[in-house]
Amino acid sequence: MRLSRYFLPTLKDNPAEAQIASHRLMLRAGLIRQEAAGIYAWLPLGLRVLRNIERIVREEMDRAGALELLMPTLQLADLWRESGRYDAYGPEMLRIRDRHERELLYGPTNEEMITEIFRAGVRSYRDLPLNLYHVQWKFRDEQRPRFGVMRGREFLMKDGYSFDLDEAGARRSYNRMFVAYLRAFSRMGLRAIPMRAETGPIGGDLSHEFIVLADTGESDVYCDRALLDLPVPAADTDYAGDLEPAIRRWTAPYAATSDVHDAARFESEVPAERRLHTRGIEVGQIFYFGTKYSEPMRAAVTLPDGSSRPIHGGSYGIGVSRLVGAIIEAGHDEHGIVWPEPVAPFDVGLIGLKPGDAAVEAACDALYAKLEASGMHVLYDDTDERAGAKFANMDLVGLPWQIAIGPRGLAAGQVELKRRAGGERVELAPDDAIARLVEARTARTGT
Amino acid sequence: MRLSRYFLPTLKDNPAEAQIASHRLMLRAGLIRQEAAGIYAWLPLGLRVLRNIERIVREEMDRAGALELLMPTLQLADLWRESGRYDAYGPEMLRIRDRHERELLYGPTNEEMITEIFRAGVRSYRDLPLNLYHVQWKFRDEQRPRFGVMRGREFLMKDGYSFDLDEAGARRSYNRMFVAYLRAFSRMGLRAIPMRAETGPIGGDLSHEFIVLADTGESDVYCDRALLDLPVPAADTDYAGDLEPAIRRWTAPYAATSDVHDAARFESEVPAERRLHTRGIEVGQIFYFGTKYSEPMRAAVTLPDGSSRPIHGGSYGIGVSRLVGAIIEAGHDEHGIVWPEPVAPFDVGLIGLKPGDAAVEAACDALYAKLEASGMHVLYDDTDERAGAKFANMDLVGLPWQIAIGPRGLAAGQVELKRRAGGERVELAPDDAIARLVEARTARTGT
Repeated sequence: MRLSRYFLPTLKDNPAEAQIASHRLMLRAGLIRQEAAGIYAWLPLGLRVLRNIERIVREEMDRAGALELLMPTLQLADLWRESGRYDAYGPEMLRIRDRHERELLYGPTNEEMITEIFRAGVRSYRDLPLNLYHVQWKFRDEQRPRFGVMRGREFLMKDGYSFDLDEAGARRSYNRMFVAYLRAFSRMGLRAIPMRAETGPIGGDLSHEFIVLADTGESDVYCDRALLDLPVPAADTDYAGDLEPAIRRWTAPYAATSDVHDAARFESEVPAERRLHTRGIEVGQIFYFGTKYSEPMRAAVTLPDGSSRPIHGGSYGIGVSRLVGAIIEAGHDEHGIVWPEPVAPFDVGLIGLKPGDAAVEAACDALYAKLEASGMHVLYDDTDERAGAKFANMDLVGLPWQIAIGPRGLAAGQVELKRRAGGERVELAPDDAIARLVEARTARTGT
Repeated sequence: MRLSRYFLPTLKDNPAEAQIASHRLMLRAGLIRQEAAGIYAWLPLGLRVLRNIERIVREEMDRAGALELLMPTLQLADLWRESGRYDAYGPEMLRIRDRHERELLYGPTNEEMITEIFRAGVRSYRDLPLNLYHVQWKFRDEQRPRFGVMRGREFLMKDGYSFDLDEAGARRSYNRMFVAYLRAFSRMGLRAIPMRAETGPIGGDLSHEFIVLADTGESDVYCDRALLDLPVPAADTDYAGDLEPAIRRWTAPYAATSDVHDAARFESEVPAERRLHTRGIEVGQIFYFGTKYSEPMRAAVTLPDGSSRPIHGGSYGIGVSRLVGAIIEAGHDEHGIVWPEPVAPFDVGLIGLKPGDAAVEAACDALYAKLEASGMHVLYDDTDERAGAKFANMDLVGLPWQIAIGPRGLAAGQVELKRRAGGERVELAPDDAIARLVEARTARTGT
């Protein structure tokens, strides 16, 4: 993409309303624009990141055997009356009346609707286990929306729901999502630690929050430092097999949010030097809630003996739009964002250092074409800005690699390749720069 | 995908509420489920079609130089007061109050918001032309939602907006979208005819509706049959070049909706045998509206002489969710849906004709693996249903190809390949069936 033809409205100054780095950088780097309190438009650069995160989430859900569907944003109030949550949900639920005075709401989560879809479509125990998910916009009418997309009102969430015959089956479904979540966050360049957590308004008796450690996080957490180095299950994990050993490895070390923190256990189980009490950002949460929804909503399957049994359910959320903020909190410096490669909006920024210099422009154009032909996504700053402004802008935007071409290097047949994370620079021939990027991609993705 | 692990709740009987074929077939084939009047959940099979349509739209928008962003579903009422449309829009606008009694609305279209985003991010004439689009859920509170996704309330739309310095530039932007629309619909297997149309609540003085001819359509249209055979601009169309000849070819023959129909012109310009007066489904509409939004909302750019000028705008909509219905209206028979290959949810349905027969199952499993390895998307009916029910179900679901494997054919080393459109059947070796499908795909996509 040529920057001259792109829409990237970056800001020179720090927006006054932004209290944390991710909010500030998302506004400054032209990723989002606030349209109302807690409601954002995703500008082209931000949307590319959001889509990358969505893609990773989707790939890991599919790998774990979940099926994607898409539920609407608006729901009938009556559906929530069936479960008893309509009155319980409180002012965070955006309640709406249509032109015929029918009561609707903007879905904050979808346990009721998916249970309704399940009971209409599934009859037999043979159709279990079933895991259905979608990636859809939700609304929670936060009292004080803040921190940009970290605590917005309209937000993009992946929410999935499992249906099993009994608790043992439901725990296997829970384990599959546990592993899928570890993998998804890890692929985004994040270390998200599963912590025992309150079940809150979803209900149930088993829950883990996946938490990215960050000083600006809203969660108060306690954990064993051993969790910082545990290996994440591999891509070829057999989701039909026994996942208990992997789950035990990740749940044995102490990790809990303050809501369920047990100070005595923490001190007895974790050696002092490994005790970590810090803050974190919740990027996902998984719940097992048994028959909490299936009983009142009569979602049951027929057993071989003809009897009927309410299914055991779980739900599994990932804050897709919040993750953009969390990834920036975990990866930025004083110059701007430092994207992990798998979620970066472009792979490489190409900078022409002398606008108007025909040789530099020709070299940039040629390299741009070659990079794109090799499958790299390139943001090519072909504008008339001076070199310093271009470098600053590329650092702000935070693409993993930068290639700068100027008249002096070009005379020596060289371009400058810079890695945004770390800042190492090297001068090399244009084709060698391409080879280096392709090699880095191959090392990362295996393709 | 193995059907035994899929979620495909098909219906045996015709739903009473469905008056037209697409609505009936979408419910019966398990593509959608109604969650409230005019509000649908997209079940896994339906979502795959929706995503295919989205992908084609996106590819053609990007090819034409448009940039994708994503605006939120909810908007501030005050933004619509700026343009004067808040009071004018009427009861189709879903008006909402949040917990702080701020007035919001569920966006039915986005001229105001995109104008706000433009004016905040663009200053100079050098940043023009600009064309921004998104694919997002919209809401129009129809008095009587009907015909399933054809006239739903919550619907998925691609809406794009162009910004130009003057009318001449805006017309070039309009032409680019005109060509992109012809290409997008054609790639979905549809003949959509651009017809002069009323501009309606969007305003402006130039508009075309893209209409798929169908007896069940809600539009009353008049056109020259010559339009049924016109060639669609090629993929390598130069969008930076002069598109006027292509536009003239498509706008010279008479075509108009009844709102702007000129009977005298129709009869004088079109020979009687080419006059077509029929019904159609509007799947897209494009508008040039000049400064209708930029003037009241003060969206202007600075010219070289330092003066300021309001931009000339256009907007361009495609009914993504409605297209699923339109494609079915255009492609079905008494047995079910007949998907055009580019939008089909799977490429091929694989049917094992004798459940429990080890040789048949092994042959099915092997062919399934080979088809998937060759990049085909396969829906493999591995259930215990009897053969007749499986065939009927595959016909209902409408995948372009079916492969059936039974014990008798297998003994002769053959499978049966059937093309859903037309119904031709041929017996051939499994590897030859794969070769035939790969060949058909290559002929279609060039890859």
